[in-house]
Amino acid sequence: MDINIIGSGNVAWHLAHRLFECGYTIRTVYSRTEKNAKALAQQVQAAAINDVAQLPPADINILSLKDEVYVDVVAQIPSSEAVYVHTSGCMNAEILSKLGENFGVLYPFQTFNKKKQVDFSTIPVCVEASNDTTLQKLQTIAATIGGSVNCLNMRQRLHLHLAGVIASNFTNALYGMAKEILDKENIDFDIIKPLIKETAAKVDYLHPYDAQTGPASRKDWNIINRQIAMLDNDHQRNLYLYLTQTIQEQQAKRKNEEL
Amino acid sequence: MDINIIGSGNVAWHLAHRLFECGYTIRTVYSRTEKNAKALAQQVQAAAINDVAQLPPADINILSLKDEVYVDVVAQIPSSEAVYVHTSGCMNAEILSKLGENFGVLYPFQTFNKKKQVDFSTIPVCVEASNDTTLQKLQTIAATIGGSVNCLNMRQRLHLHLAGVIASNFTNALYGMAKEILDKENIDFDIIKPLIKETAAKVDYLHPYDAQTGPASRKDWNIINRQIAMLDNDHQRNLYLYLTQTIQEQQAKRKNEEL
Repeated sequence: MDINIIGSGNVAWHLAHRLFECGYTIRTVYSRTEKNAKALAQQVQAAAINDVAQLPPADINILSLKDEVYVDVVAQIPSSEAVYVHTSGCMNAEILSKLGENFGVLYPFQTFNKKKQVDFSTIPVCVEASNDTTLQKLQTIAATIGGSVNCLNMRQRLHLHLAGVIASNFTNALYGMAKEILDKENIDFDIIKPLIKETAAKVDYLHPYDAQTGPASRKDWNIINRQIAMLDNDHQRNLYLYLTQTIQEQQAKRKNEEL
Repeated sequence: MDINIIGSGNVAWHLAHRLFECGYTIRTVYSRTEKNAKALAQQVQAAAINDVAQLPPADINILSLKDEVYVDVVAQIPSSEAVYVHTSGCMNAEILSKLGENFGVLYPFQTFNKKKQVDFSTIPVCVEASNDTTLQKLQTIAATIGGSVNCLNMRQRLHLHLAGVIASNFTNALYGMAKEILDKENIDFDIIKPLIKETAAKVDYLHPYDAQTGPASRKDWNIINRQIAMLDNDHQRNLYLYLTQTIQEQQAKRKNEEL
């Protein structure tokens, strides 16, 4: 089974490396920026192209692009009997339907950055397909490269993506906010890393509601108000208050469940 | 050096176990609830008391209580030449000054839950003391039980505590919110655990601003608006918008730094 990779961003980068590592032949890497296409193609022994209309045939074509360019790129790709998939958490598989009958989604559910290696063998891979033959092919690939295979429909995938934004992008924004506070007081960011790791590790042991500690869950308004007063601007103060209320609502829900 | 533990909550529990494991003699465990005092005392070969006025002499007295009961409990403790410390991130050391001249703070910077073991040898311990002799004693204890010793003043400790609430309690609230979304769509919470772990692991490699991915950092308002529409209520929608704005402000700051 040979594979074309259409795109050279963070997801394409890690996916191509993992597929290559698992023994798949990467035939072509496309990027509209020739340099980016070549950089990735070289690492996975593939040809590089920067005109997607020249895409040679391959059994599987994996499109991993910015959401806003899909329509343009898809319009230029030659249609065929091959399989076409995208890797997006929030796009309909049907945007690929003009390329042929065999299309779907191969969505590795992880945050990727070219600068950071990632253990792909732990990553849940979500699949969706236009027919059973295609689904089986995608399940085989997903099982080979990933940690688990998950058949999700479009609605589920959209909600998974939303949950991911909340648990990863928003969480990371809070790490950034914490770093700003420490920087200003000349406290090394290293001091908070064990806390960040332990908070994440707790999800294996405890329901997040039960794992909660701190002034919001204790309804300690004395400390809550003092901390709000320490913040720099209204945006941060409002955010603090919203998250405090979220915690208190979650604690109230948990209490109701226990009754 | 023998130690009294005043309190039996999550922090007292883990601290007493770690001190005992490191060879310190725990003389007494106090809790106003006899059952709780006995439960912890038994595990660290200490005596249990539920009347703090009966606290026997010890070299170090560690108070680890809910913030709101400190004043009451401190008023009943016999004063002496011993060392008195509390373990709070946000209380002044001076609340212990009526107990004697040797007082301070021993603040292990971690989230503790009795139900979850924790590797104490990685935990940063913050110390503060009323005089050099006391500081040296606390530094020795901190170096023995923890992963690093950090001399912070009151202002720094308050800001560290605030950063901890943001990076741990608030982050955990987001994990809870993500779990709710997955539960409703019948998606197993396990699917998001690798993402949560990887997001936390990234702090070792990348500045949080540089690690950021997702629709907010790409300013993809098409997806942002679709995700906001998927949320259940105004509270969640406002929170989503605030965190999106936080990410975009952080990305703008990073760009300015790079110019």
